[in-house]
Amino acid sequence: MFTLAIHGGAGTLSPSEMTPEKEAAYRRGLEDALQAGLAVLSGNGSALDAVEKAVNSLEDNELFNAGRGAALTSDGRQEMDASIMCGRTGKAGAVAGVKNVRNPITLSRLVMEKTDYIFLLGDGAEEFAREQQLPFEPDAYYITEFRKEELRKAQQKPAGVGKGTVGAVALDRHGNLAAATSTGGTTNKRYGRVGDSPIIGAGTYADNRIGAISCTGDGEYFIRLVAAYDVACLMDYKGLSLAEACRTVIFDKLKPLGGEGGLIAVDPAGNAELVYHSEGMYRGWADERGRKEVAIFDR
Amino acid sequence: MFTLAIHGGAGTLSPSEMTPEKEAAYRRGLEDALQAGLAVLSGNGSALDAVEKAVNSLEDNELFNAGRGAALTSDGRQEMDASIMCGRTGKAGAVAGVKNVRNPITLSRLVMEKTDYIFLLGDGAEEFAREQQLPFEPDAYYITEFRKEELRKAQQKPAGVGKGTVGAVALDRHGNLAAATSTGGTTNKRYGRVGDSPIIGAGTYADNRIGAISCTGDGEYFIRLVAAYDVACLMDYKGLSLAEACRTVIFDKLKPLGGEGGLIAVDPAGNAELVYHSEGMYRGWADERGRKEVAIFDR
Repeated sequence: MFTLAIHGGAGTLSPSEMTPEKEAAYRRGLEDALQAGLAVLSGNGSALDAVEKAVNSLEDNELFNAGRGAALTSDGRQEMDASIMCGRTGKAGAVAGVKNVRNPITLSRLVMEKTDYIFLLGDGAEEFAREQQLPFEPDAYYITEFRKEELRKAQQKPAGVGKGTVGAVALDRHGNLAAATSTGGTTNKRYGRVGDSPIIGAGTYADNRIGAISCTGDGEYFIRLVAAYDVACLMDYKGLSLAEACRTVIFDKLKPLGGEGGLIAVDPAGNAELVYHSEGMYRGWADERGRKEVAIFDR
Repeated sequence: MFTLAIHGGAGTLSPSEMTPEKEAAYRRGLEDALQAGLAVLSGNGSALDAVEKAVNSLEDNELFNAGRGAALTSDGRQEMDASIMCGRTGKAGAVAGVKNVRNPITLSRLVMEKTDYIFLLGDGAEEFAREQQLPFEPDAYYITEFRKEELRKAQQKPAGVGKGTVGAVALDRHGNLAAATSTGGTTNKRYGRVGDSPIIGAGTYADNRIGAISCTGDGEYFIRLVAAYDVACLMDYKGLSLAEACRTVIFDKLKPLGGEGGLIAVDPAGNAELVYHSEGMYRGWADERGRKEVAIFDR
């Protein structure tokens, strides 16, 4: 049995901005990412490989705010954050404020596997990426017309308009869980701002006994709530089901604070939850029984 | 009623390195920090002010690994991390990879109070510190003979030898809690490495309903354990006492992983816990009833 869930961010284009062509392109992007993860899982691969490949696909797709197409900071740069956690070992890797690295989630995984550290920042993370011979891309690769236009719009309004994050969670046939999250942050953010995506416990968490969780949305609220680990604690210490725990964090904790966002999660039984409090969330899930779905707005 | 607890780091000098003169100096540093926090609390000040002032005192003291006297990276630089959380509002602020800012904990507090963000990195955090007109110090202020010698020794051994963090937790007379943590990281760390200290949930957490927690030790383990928030969840969701929750995290979770470190915590009833699994922990606590204690090794 395996299960995979992905998100391409809460805080989508509004229904009025979403043309049929754009919607088809987003759905195709989600399908591609699901397919990349499913190929791993159906070949008896690991949850860790599956979430990395699914996130790589979203990072390489300029429609989503991670890797190519990352949101621009207030001074027109990209700065990317990512984290990954292995539910089998409890090990984790994360990077923040990295530029020009093609796939920040792969860099996070190498931090987890090749160093004694978990979290590397900026220049130090980029230096490590070069040592590991990861591909780098020039600024022009990341900075799309869409994000430039979004920045122009955002600069006429308060900061933090454009947002979005990508992520994946998986259970593999070996009973192992993993979670991964990658982002370009919020459009027009202050240079140096980091949200929940690279923070183990806030944006990403995985434990084989409990579940794997990846969050998206107003990062500052997810940090304050320690949202990903809170889902796990509500299950482990309070006995809530995966669905109850996810809904508690999003509707009883995030929503009253005035925050928007969502999360995806899987548990060791293969249940998947995709819960959000926002106009929409780019998302998809699939399992070994052949069920597969992608969605953007409410079903 | 008020209570204050502080730490100057788990992972002290070993008893054999600790001369009577050094021990007296460390104890005086802890006394000074306690006094700085107690002056706030006894004057009806806030827990937030108390933890900031106590940590400022430790940051300004070159004996402790935060602010002046911060541990050096593998290329001989200092890079500091800090975070603070207010139990009344649930708001938080954090900085990582900052250089030359005299008091990183004060910068974290300004991030919390003057921005819509929680977490600022490196150059962006320093730019914000300049806007806020915080004092900066030249490299020579931070780089002490002790830390240079420690770096020389560490470079003959695997990374991460020197460590230490400072922190404070407080309950004030108004029933508000706060937690603060500040560090220079580990000696000979790779440039860009960040531990648990600036991570809300891992190194620092506060909630008026539950408790305030500040951690110190092998940061990577504290990140994986989401240690500070785990103490809170064990109390809130599982009904453990402050003492039980702190001991569970340090002895049942950290120790089996092979990690060393400790934490300090206070709860809304004014109980204080200072728990560690390491050779010693620079620490102190005091309350309104006039009880006051500083210690380094086991009592």
